[in-house]
Amino acid sequence: MSFTWQSRIRFVDTDASRRIHYTAILRHFEAAEHEFLRHIGFGYSQITNREVGFPRVHVEVDFQSPIGYNDVLDIEVSVGRIGATSFTFLFNASVEGRPAASGKIVVVAMNPATRKSCPVPEVLAAALKSHQKEQS
Amino acid sequence: MSFTWQSRIRFVDTDASRRIHYTAILRHFEAAEHEFLRHIGFGYSQITNREVGFPRVHVEVDFQSPIGYNDVLDIEVSVGRIGATSFTFLFNASVEGRPAASGKIVVVAMNPATRKSCPVPEVLAAALKSHQKEQS
Amino acid sequence: MSFTWQSRIRFVDTDASRRIHYTAILRHFEAAEHEFLRHIGFGYSQITNREVGFPRVHVEVDFQSPIGYNDVLDIEVSVGRIGATSFTFLFNASVEGRPAASGKIVVVAMNPATRKSCPVPEVLAAALKSHQKEQS
Amino acid sequence: MSFTWQSRIRFVDTDASRRIHYTAILRHFEAAEHEFLRHIGFGYSQITNREVGFPRVHVEVDFQSPIGYNDVLDIEVSVGRIGATSFTFLFNASVEGRPAASGKIVVVAMNPATRKSCPVPEVLAAALKSHQKEQS
Repeated sequence: MSFTWQSRIRFVDTDASRRIHYTAILRHFEAAEHEFLRHIGFGYSQITNREVGFPRVHVEVDFQSPIGYNDVLDIEVSVGRIGATSFTFLFNASVEGRPAASGKIVVVAMNPATRKSCPVPEVLAAALKSHQKEQS
Repeated sequence: MSFTWQSRIRFVDTDASRRIHYTAILRHFEAAEHEFLRHIGFGYSQITNREVGFPRVHVEVDFQSPIGYNDVLDIEVSVGRIGATSFTFLFNASVEGRPAASGKIVVVAMNPATRKSCPVPEVLAAALKSHQKEQS
Repeated sequence: MSFTWQSRIRFVDTDASRRIHYTAILRHFEAAEHEFLRHIGFGYSQITNREVGFPRVHVEVDFQSPIGYNDVLDIEVSVGRIGATSFTFLFNASVEGRPAASGKIVVVAMNPATRKSCPVPEVLAAALKSHQKEQS
Repeated sequence: MSFTWQSRIRFVDTDASRRIHYTAILRHFEAAEHEFLRHIGFGYSQITNREVGFPRVHVEVDFQSPIGYNDVLDIEVSVGRIGATSFTFLFNASVEGRPAASGKIVVVAMNPATRKSCPVPEVLAAALKSHQKEQS
């Protein structure tokens, strides 16, 4: 049940080190995350509404090997912990089979009016569960 | 009546050419524009509200000389044409006195409800006028 | 002989106006430009080398209609003026057939050692010519 | 021995949630990091050279409270672990005294020719040590 999205590194993603700027990987992870959500039947435009928003409370990335201009990332997206009011996306990016970067993003369900956390909508939780990875 | 804002080029602004990525200059122009508006007594948080929004309809930049990591831009902001429903920001960026980049951004006043253009608020038009450059 | 590249607007492309931030369109134009170059047989990794670099000297964008999160841009790329030492890319982006943004980027061929303009490589000029639009 | 850098949230930093896009905080952390290095007598242009480069191998951010357009971040930069071939930057950003985001970036010293890790230059390690925080 794995989902993979391909994304090519552009010039704007690089910096004067001639490789990727470390912040640019997050743009590619975001594209992969949104395509993953579309794949499981959701789009943020559907689920981000007056009742619930999805701010991120934790983001982390580990780089395993250099990523350069024109490299094509294969970004595998899966789901980690699903809690009552939050869930975790997991990312594994490789370039031609070589591990390049991995990431973890914790998303909280929030009521925009009260600005307090609220339950993850059931239909979303169920869809996420179908792509949940066993926890390490 | 000129206003100048200083802004330093960061690593994230560069690309694999080892100089600035051409899109990054617009982040620095935006910072200069907002500081200019604060300087003349406005902030977008004050003027962007339910009655009027300010989308950009035209953006252009000319590059005169290379801009590199750690360069400090002196960005002069002034106002060009002020029309009934739009106005123009002008930018001149230099590095140690050497012209580096110039820009022009046309902003339209828009009613967010109807999505149609509307008059530039009078108090804003008057403040902009005090920093208007003679048109070339 | 037209080339079109599709690109979807991501959350990172938007701003607090709830629509695209005007600088983000340039990331999508860049992706379209590089895919266009690959399509006509070039990649910047092939043509950007010790003999010639391609800095941009002019960039401009006109916005025709609002672009929002999740919109899919159809970006048509073509070539405008081809001079001895420079050439122009033209961009026309639409969303579901509705014109959304157009752009123009002037690129100069430069000798990285001398930092002076130099002839556009003949093989590149010939390939660009095959996608040249009649000048307006 | 703490160092703090102020940085204002711009429109480009926000997204359609009307608050900061989570990737934008890293641009502000980078500005703070480079100013910190300048403060302790280093600039990347001085220390990034043919003998040593400084790629990041780990980046993480925790968000404690919402950050919006025009907010001024007070970003405290300090140094965590200093190892033989790597070191850690620590960031604590607050808005008007309220904790907003914290970050941790692990940097490796690398020989650009061999692409292998190498000792952190002694003069840099000594300067970093003077701003080292006791480890939690």
